[in-house]
Amino acid sequence: MNLYNYVWTQDGITAKDSLVYPFEERGLQFGDGIYEVIRIYQGNYDLLDAHIERLYRSAEAIRLQVPFNKEELITSLQNLAEKNAVHTDAKLYLQITRGSAPREHTFPDVPSNLYAYIEESPRPAAQLQQGVRTILTEDIRWDLCYIKSLNLLPNVLAKQTAKENGAVEAIFHKDGQVTEGSSSNVFIVKDNMLFTHPAAPNILHGCVRDRVLTLAAESALEVHETTFSTQQLLDADEVFITSTTSEIMPVIEVDGNRIRNGRPGMITRQLQLAYEQVSDIQQTAFI
Amino acid sequence: MNLYNYVWTQDGITAKDSLVYPFEERGLQFGDGIYEVIRIYQGNYDLLDAHIERLYRSAEAIRLQVPFNKEELITSLQNLAEKNAVHTDAKLYLQITRGSAPREHTFPDVPSNLYAYIEESPRPAAQLQQGVRTILTEDIRWDLCYIKSLNLLPNVLAKQTAKENGAVEAIFHKDGQVTEGSSSNVFIVKDNMLFTHPAAPNILHGCVRDRVLTLAAESALEVHETTFSTQQLLDADEVFITSTTSEIMPVIEVDGNRIRNGRPGMITRQLQLAYEQVSDIQQTAFI
Repeated sequence: MNLYNYVWTQDGITAKDSLVYPFEERGLQFGDGIYEVIRIYQGNYDLLDAHIERLYRSAEAIRLQVPFNKEELITSLQNLAEKNAVHTDAKLYLQITRGSAPREHTFPDVPSNLYAYIEESPRPAAQLQQGVRTILTEDIRWDLCYIKSLNLLPNVLAKQTAKENGAVEAIFHKDGQVTEGSSSNVFIVKDNMLFTHPAAPNILHGCVRDRVLTLAAESALEVHETTFSTQQLLDADEVFITSTTSEIMPVIEVDGNRIRNGRPGMITRQLQLAYEQVSDIQQTAFI
Repeated sequence: MNLYNYVWTQDGITAKDSLVYPFEERGLQFGDGIYEVIRIYQGNYDLLDAHIERLYRSAEAIRLQVPFNKEELITSLQNLAEKNAVHTDAKLYLQITRGSAPREHTFPDVPSNLYAYIEESPRPAAQLQQGVRTILTEDIRWDLCYIKSLNLLPNVLAKQTAKENGAVEAIFHKDGQVTEGSSSNVFIVKDNMLFTHPAAPNILHGCVRDRVLTLAAESALEVHETTFSTQQLLDADEVFITSTTSEIMPVIEVDGNRIRNGRPGMITRQLQLAYEQVSDIQQTAFI
């Protein structure tokens, strides 16, 4: 996908080709940093405040200095979108590392490195309509997945395995309980009730996850933030995953097993439509 | 510490300042890579084959292409040391990532990025003689720590906490059992027997750890590769940690509690002396 020409760093806006890093960088050698991916619909950020709030929570959790306050950060991201004249659907990627310094595990006394860029990213309309396939895989990650850190190796391996099995997402389970996807949160619908893993330290507290809980509450759908087993997942009436780029994505297959009739469910569809409205999407994916 | 001028990459030897990476690099965005640190004594690599073997095991575990075979790798590292005219005690750092590519979790179709550099690194003589302080911290890492990956954030946080508490190492424990240090393996001596965590998937299979087991066997010291509790650690007759740069390092304190009389033990010292001999160290640290 097209990456817009201007990127933003702690030193200002610059052309993407001019931004390089030395080999002694904390991100490159330790994954010592955090990130966010923020949705842009027709040039406008969606859930911007929620993402920035989470960025600061991640930073605090790993004791990383964010070189700007929240207002400065938001203004700078707005400036970056303007400078790139973004008017399409896109996504912003932002990461902050503990800086460039000789390799020592302990914190160096150097400024953090921040960079942000914007990439074109059309909504996955066909998948939103038809749903996607997933696989199950054991959750072998560390205990603090609520931190959106650059330590993503297990997620990378899980996603690759999903792809090789004709699926788009790997759903993690630990001790038989579903936690989340490799880059998404997981919901099931059973008997007109919605279930999702609690916002515990071992899963990402997704911004779209939060929005779904709000939409569900507004629609008088009964919601349970509670763990459920892989068997409950397979036996669900409906399954969907949520993420910034995939929004509310129906899951029609898990490990080769169809979820009910193998088609997106009614409640999922209602939530998708409500999602389009609340996020001010101009053109529906459901014609 | 001084970093020698020439670095080696998959494209050959180059000056260190000319080696930079784009911001879309798998190491920088996912920690999607592996590494090794190899000891150099007076210009000569120590345990080189063992490190290279482990590098390949790590690569295989994360399905990463090493762009050279073992013989080529060893020759290139020898050439790098020669080119830099290394004659002192030093260490080599080598890492391989899944390359530079637009950010997607799944594997990109690009070549791996490899780089290696050499840094001066005197033996920590005073610490080897007097021993070091450590702290205990919960092991919150992922399940596959035998992979020497670039996902080192929990290790970074643990090491920093150790430093802030006047210690040089954090010793991890999980469910009350000691696993390893943030950048070392852990041994205890009790009643003239040596204990260390088995080489299970959840700890790094240290090259120095292996050498200690060999030295212990040769000295007729009874060895048990078995887990031990934090209480057994505190009650031990002797404690030491092992790593490439700290060799066999006596631990004299854990969380403020002295190990026995707070001085390096006899068996630890014997192993240290045997270590100096087998690794062909010219000048002893114990005068």
